[in-house]
Amino acid sequence: MSDAPLSYRRAGVDVEGADRLVEALRPILRGTHTAAVVDHASRFAGLVRPDTSGMADPLIAATCDGVGTKVLLARSDDDFECLGRDLVAMNVNDLLPVGARPLLFLDYVAAGRLDAGVVESVVRGAAAACIEAGCAFVGGETAEMPGVYGDDGFDLAGFAVGVVDGTLLPDLDGIEPGYPVVGLPSTGIHANGLSLARAAILERAGLGLDDPLPGTDGTVAEILMTPTALYVRQVLDALRSARIKGAAHVTGGGLLSRAGSVVGAGLGVRIDPDTYRRPSVFDAIQACGDIDEAEMSGTFNMGLGFLAVTLPGDLADLVGSGWMHVGEVTSADGIVDLGYARR
Amino acid sequence: MSDAPLSYRRAGVDVEGADRLVEALRPILRGTHTAAVVDHASRFAGLVRPDTSGMADPLIAATCDGVGTKVLLARSDDDFECLGRDLVAMNVNDLLPVGARPLLFLDYVAAGRLDAGVVESVVRGAAAACIEAGCAFVGGETAEMPGVYGDDGFDLAGFAVGVVDGTLLPDLDGIEPGYPVVGLPSTGIHANGLSLARAAILERAGLGLDDPLPGTDGTVAEILMTPTALYVRQVLDALRSARIKGAAHVTGGGLLSRAGSVVGAGLGVRIDPDTYRRPSVFDAIQACGDIDEAEMSGTFNMGLGFLAVTLPGDLADLVGSGWMHVGEVTSADGIVDLGYARR
Repeated sequence: MSDAPLSYRRAGVDVEGADRLVEALRPILRGTHTAAVVDHASRFAGLVRPDTSGMADPLIAATCDGVGTKVLLARSDDDFECLGRDLVAMNVNDLLPVGARPLLFLDYVAAGRLDAGVVESVVRGAAAACIEAGCAFVGGETAEMPGVYGDDGFDLAGFAVGVVDGTLLPDLDGIEPGYPVVGLPSTGIHANGLSLARAAILERAGLGLDDPLPGTDGTVAEILMTPTALYVRQVLDALRSARIKGAAHVTGGGLLSRAGSVVGAGLGVRIDPDTYRRPSVFDAIQACGDIDEAEMSGTFNMGLGFLAVTLPGDLADLVGSGWMHVGEVTSADGIVDLGYARR
Repeated sequence: MSDAPLSYRRAGVDVEGADRLVEALRPILRGTHTAAVVDHASRFAGLVRPDTSGMADPLIAATCDGVGTKVLLARSDDDFECLGRDLVAMNVNDLLPVGARPLLFLDYVAAGRLDAGVVESVVRGAAAACIEAGCAFVGGETAEMPGVYGDDGFDLAGFAVGVVDGTLLPDLDGIEPGYPVVGLPSTGIHANGLSLARAAILERAGLGLDDPLPGTDGTVAEILMTPTALYVRQVLDALRSARIKGAAHVTGGGLLSRAGSVVGAGLGVRIDPDTYRRPSVFDAIQACGDIDEAEMSGTFNMGLGFLAVTLPGDLADLVGSGWMHVGEVTSADGIVDLGYARR
């Protein structure tokens, strides 16, 4: 062991490198800055002026989510950009069930050794998604943590804030049996259930990331690294033209758990499997791992990334603007019936 | 390898266990809920009604931070509670330099295998700190991520949101040479520089966590796991009675970097080392690692956890309410002079 004076760099933390990285990221973040962002000399906190005009009861909505073990699959710049986009999507989509408009986003990136290229790609992907969501990427934390993560190990967490008028929150009490359930398509598995997908494809079936994934038109890596859909525009548009009585972002717990959260106590939901496309990735995962239907739909979105309950009179308008009519509210208390799996 | 159908649990993710844990945490979070929290059936986002009464220009401030490699030192319930408190403190203290009042907090807890006891202790510590900071703990994400973290490995990230009147933001432009610099004491190293502290004490000096830390009155674990100070009450009180022209939470980059951020371009800061107590942990770390003074003060808070610049006429009032008069603004552009180290 060296007897030279110890320094933070010798202890595995490159402060100057981290400072350079933060400077390099600044213009990428700045590119997302809406007129709402308030520039201030202090860099301890991001500052945003929320547009609450026309709101009778302005509320702040806040979400936190990561991208799970999808981080273990990323190898290329495109993959890291995908993770950044996923991180934003997982968070801003979670603002939408209460009808909140995304306002700001922050990220947490921790790694055993900070790779400037990796962090820049993640931030670039997140920034592109923030622009698409109309949300300002105002900062975050980049932490070099030797010992917590291996040299190539890292994790991501995201955080989004939105605003919503409290007088317009979805009201589950007003939902009646027979009301239509509408949905938006997912792009694939998004960022949920990756541990099960990896176990099935990479371990059980012994496939490599660059092998073709049977039954799909891409390699394992291409299919699993498809970016998560952003639902901001479609949901905010729907809120302007239709009444949304309940809604869910279909994430952890899968379609089988999340579908039930669009209604309150005493009601259930029936979804017709013939009304939406089941992306081929799900059949591929299921075949590789010999996985039950109930386990599949209790883990993955199965093709429906966002669900909402609307009034019968608003259905045609929503279907005309890209929503799928996928099912209806039932009187079966607490029962989600997917046509092939029930809880 | 088993041929049984694959499941999320067999893939290393215990969804039912995670659901039970989230239910167990709910009452702990509820105990922090201020009147501002809006209960809503949807659990996708936390909802808070900000009190902006009397604000001419209500702004939202948001921060994100972790506790660094302090996670590697925690072994007991008390230690995990300390980490929870640290996580809140690192984030809400970062809201204070812009004068924002903490409103809500969310946490991200990720682990290779979720240990319900560990997560509950972290959340309990965070909740206690949220109550002290007057901030509602409205949710978060608990992620089981085998392969990203080892079985006992975990990481924490936190996010805080506050509100501030844009017409009352600190104005660095109004600061003149000779203005007093005031400070608040740290409780020790807080949650910054842990990688350097661990390298010095555990590796260089070869001490164990339960060994006495020479020159201090505790063991290595006791001294390093001292909870981070919460500055919310003192800073918000100060903002009511005095004019704060610039402020800094002394974290990454240490006293030497952060002290400079209380003033704008063209000015510097001189801090008198005889005006505040240097906790013995810093001499212990320095001796164990043979660390330069500049490296020490460029990494650690050295005893000052929060700094502010005030008007000469407001100094007596602040000193009377527990702030220390630690130095003054100088005309030395960009120079921070700590009496023993300069940048």
